[in-house]
Amino acid sequence: MPRAGRYLPILDWGRRYDRGALESDLVAAVIVTIMLIPQSLAYALLAGLPPEAGVYASIAPILLYAVFGTSRALAVGPVAVVSLMTAAAVGQVAAQGTAGYAAAALVLAALSGGMLLLLGVFRLGFLANFLSHPVIAGFISASGVLIAASQLQHVLGVKGGGATLPDIVRALAAHLGDVNPATVVIGAAAMAFLFWTRKGLKPALLRLGVRPRLADVAAKAGPVAAVAATTFAVWALGLNERGVAVVGAVPQSLPPLTLPMADLDVVRALIGPALLISIIGFVESVSVAQTLAARKRQRIDPDQELIGLGAANLGAAFTGGYPVTGGFARSVVNFDAGAETPAAGAFTAVGLAIAAAALTPLVYFLPKATLAATIIVAVLSLVDFSILRRSWTYSKADFAAVLATILLTLGIGVEAGVTAGVLLSVALHLYKASRPHVAEVGLVPGTQHFRNIRRHKVLTDPTLVTLRVDESLFFANARFLEDLIQDRVAGDGAVRHVVLLCSAVNDIDLSALESLEAVNARLAEMGVGFHLSEVKGPVMDRLQRSHFLDALNGRVFLSQFDAMRALAPAIGADASGSTAKVVTA
Amino acid sequence: MPRAGRYLPILDWGRRYDRGALESDLVAAVIVTIMLIPQSLAYALLAGLPPEAGVYASIAPILLYAVFGTSRALAVGPVAVVSLMTAAAVGQVAAQGTAGYAAAALVLAALSGGMLLLLGVFRLGFLANFLSHPVIAGFISASGVLIAASQLQHVLGVKGGGATLPDIVRALAAHLGDVNPATVVIGAAAMAFLFWTRKGLKPALLRLGVRPRLADVAAKAGPVAAVAATTFAVWALGLNERGVAVVGAVPQSLPPLTLPMADLDVVRALIGPALLISIIGFVESVSVAQTLAARKRQRIDPDQELIGLGAANLGAAFTGGYPVTGGFARSVVNFDAGAETPAAGAFTAVGLAIAAAALTPLVYFLPKATLAATIIVAVLSLVDFSILRRSWTYSKADFAAVLATILLTLGIGVEAGVTAGVLLSVALHLYKASRPHVAEVGLVPGTQHFRNIRRHKVLTDPTLVTLRVDESLFFANARFLEDLIQDRVAGDGAVRHVVLLCSAVNDIDLSALESLEAVNARLAEMGVGFHLSEVKGPVMDRLQRSHFLDALNGRVFLSQFDAMRALAPAIGADASGSTAKVVTA
Repeated sequence: MPRAGRYLPILDWGRRYDRGALESDLVAAVIVTIMLIPQSLAYALLAGLPPEAGVYASIAPILLYAVFGTSRALAVGPVAVVSLMTAAAVGQVAAQGTAGYAAAALVLAALSGGMLLLLGVFRLGFLANFLSHPVIAGFISASGVLIAASQLQHVLGVKGGGATLPDIVRALAAHLGDVNPATVVIGAAAMAFLFWTRKGLKPALLRLGVRPRLADVAAKAGPVAAVAATTFAVWALGLNERGVAVVGAVPQSLPPLTLPMADLDVVRALIGPALLISIIGFVESVSVAQTLAARKRQRIDPDQELIGLGAANLGAAFTGGYPVTGGFARSVVNFDAGAETPAAGAFTAVGLAIAAAALTPLVYFLPKATLAATIIVAVLSLVDFSILRRSWTYSKADFAAVLATILLTLGIGVEAGVTAGVLLSVALHLYKASRPHVAEVGLVPGTQHFRNIRRHKVLTDPTLVTLRVDESLFFANARFLEDLIQDRVAGDGAVRHVVLLCSAVNDIDLSALESLEAVNARLAEMGVGFHLSEVKGPVMDRLQRSHFLDALNGRVFLSQFDAMRALAPAIGADASGSTAKVVTA
Repeated sequence: MPRAGRYLPILDWGRRYDRGALESDLVAAVIVTIMLIPQSLAYALLAGLPPEAGVYASIAPILLYAVFGTSRALAVGPVAVVSLMTAAAVGQVAAQGTAGYAAAALVLAALSGGMLLLLGVFRLGFLANFLSHPVIAGFISASGVLIAASQLQHVLGVKGGGATLPDIVRALAAHLGDVNPATVVIGAAAMAFLFWTRKGLKPALLRLGVRPRLADVAAKAGPVAAVAATTFAVWALGLNERGVAVVGAVPQSLPPLTLPMADLDVVRALIGPALLISIIGFVESVSVAQTLAARKRQRIDPDQELIGLGAANLGAAFTGGYPVTGGFARSVVNFDAGAETPAAGAFTAVGLAIAAAALTPLVYFLPKATLAATIIVAVLSLVDFSILRRSWTYSKADFAAVLATILLTLGIGVEAGVTAGVLLSVALHLYKASRPHVAEVGLVPGTQHFRNIRRHKVLTDPTLVTLRVDESLFFANARFLEDLIQDRVAGDGAVRHVVLLCSAVNDIDLSALESLEAVNARLAEMGVGFHLSEVKGPVMDRLQRSHFLDALNGRVFLSQFDAMRALAPAIGADASGSTAKVVTA
């Protein structure tokens, strides 16, 4: 890839663009545009914003991602989890429906875009690694439950609220008496229809002899049909006069130019949420992009993806949108519909712009219950608590992190949940690394191999203790090793030499070096020699840059067998075991 | 150790206590008591508390540590760094000299004591591992500079203030015109004398034929002499009437019973600082205790040390003190003076109680400049910025953490400094672990060994890629491996099989497992087989508890040589290289 292509992948695919790709991209764009119109309106509702914000957030971001992103099929725009996180974050600084709320959403998108750009320019994509897969899975499932619960109020036609599961349930329970029958009928019918198009329509079409790919697209078009049918029903029956909440007047306009401005206090309060939204959005987006790229043996560059998503979010901030990321559903539809290059996204943006400028009067009678139903059906497919069972079987540490994430997300909120998950993952990892496996080893008779004295019949000498550490030495386990050697030697007056067998030590950081220095000094005070064996080349290079080897109260042996021959000659010379103590497992 | 001895080490050494130990302990107690009186007053001054608080903080804590602690020689009480941290924490919630300030210090001690106890009971001492040695070294040195700077106002006799180095310097500069000549003379003389007793007195005494141990004790008694001489000078010359600030009236009393009570807001504000003080205090104390224990082949139990220090801090909270920990200087004096058991500490406590009840009128004329001089001389011995040079030479990651710690401690404050150091250490560790060494390997001709194709002349087959990962697989490097395999295979259409050589993989967490599943699925889509070889027993046990092996689009080979024979038979059968491509470094 030429140099400019590093930051502008469009230069790479753009110069090879041809008629075939154009046709594929146009077909995909039409399909995705039709699917995105109801989805964009629905996610804006979830984010607490006016419906047009969802459409605006799908236009400029798609265009910018087409220029800067590396995935050929990723479709960028509002997604469920990020919409929920936006509602949670912005809800803390402004009330829904106010101008301050929409402005704060712009600021959030700008902050998120700026952070993603910075992370990309400084190639800090690795930060996303702090989110472990199980924590993400737990977080997405818990968010799905929260989202579905938060939409029930629209399906029931009652006042609701709350950002945690208990609050949402409480609010719904308090207003259960006000349920609007017409709304419930629309909402329930839409949900039933949408579940059926997801599960039952495609098999039915296949049985009728429809081609699989077409059947798939038809099934994905369910939301459009539901929107059309319920909008028509409301208009024809005048249900909006009977308490069915509708989308109402949506401005007929291209995306406006907006400036993401707010009080410094608001900006400060949004920095933390923006970071979480950026990282969650990035992780989701990259995993979708990688899955799709793999199918065509293409590759994506995670650091450049940060730049693409950063540009997309800045685009959203300046055109009346809110935070966006690469969505799973829309990207898969785009891919399945045959999109070959990011140009498909650009054509989608044009389609949506036409819709925003011309078609918004058509959604006046669209019931909010239908939008809520599309959200509920979409997010429930994300909910999968099997991660709890899988992590329980596989690793208790992962289970603890997942459980904390799920409970805190549902009980306190999305930010608390994901933060706890990250912190717990890191803490548990450090905990495990802080107690590495250390084996006391002895010589396997008749060989030059050393094995754990607890598991094998080996030769040892009471004056010589050899410890093999199965982990790199660094600050989290430095003290552990210090304590371990101290304990082993303080309790055994016979010991004259301690050898650290370093065959599995890939690195020794400065903390560990200082621990080794402390061990060396203490052993010297006890009159015990301290030796190393089988130190790897790069580690030895580092040690030679310190004063440790000068101060070492012992030697560095190339092999553990050399160490044994030098320090316990009885065993070294006569490895048959006649003079040495044989330890049996 | 019997079961009760687990939590009460006193039962262990108490039953073997004899006359010889009693004599040694009494001698040590007298020496330590004399040394502690000025030190306690000085550190109380540093913490912003009335002088008697320092003495009180040395009495109950020593007694409680004697019951619960495991070190035979550790002397617990106020120390410089913890006093500074106390001033920083309490200064945020109350003004110096108010009743609220002293009350907040009690609350801080209670919180710290409670946290230490909890950490000990739940055996969470490993948390202290998060503080890397270089970060601690940088923090202590920077704190020493801050402390010395903060005491200059007393030596100059001017008004000062500030919690950061720039603020302290600014405040001093603003009042330089008000310098009190008599105070400066006393302060400068005391400092000069104390430096000399540290550096010059012991050699001088040794030259005069004094026994080394006595010379050592005499040198350590310097502060007492300075206190006596300057107190006498102030009294005799009436310098307190000429602007020399003196300690003044100190209540003549045993430690009072106090209740650590404050507003909930104050308590909440002190929780974070209390945690930092607890961890810093614990780390310092354990390293002193371990150093001293090693000299006598004794051992200390870090988790029980948490309980000992927790009890000591709770003691301080209920007897008019403030946060305490095991001090380096006093512990070394105690050890050198011959203390054999924690009873020496108990006798010291009795000595200090007598002093508090009877001798406080003697310090009325003690100039604050002398106390400040003892602090400055004591802490400057802690300042050692060579850690910057050492870490720069040894490891740039450690250097970055140290530099951040030092700059933030001096420029923003102790809490910001130590927090940044911890976070940066953890982040840099995860960064390193997130990019493990991965080698593509081939067969060494004529052997069954596999080596890095970049370093050795090995046999490879273009359809077979074998990757050896030199690190356990976990969330921080899972995606790295995913990207790496994707990149390697996407760019090379010849590849038919990928083998992951797992000889250095000690663990695979659930994130890494899911990454392997994703790799497996993507390789399957490309028609590429995915295989593992040389998987360790415990890792295989885990994998068998998951569905990974069922879904694996390839095989698990016991040895890499088996894998090569099965997947690249041309090389396996004829390892002479006649049909295979030989790669040369």
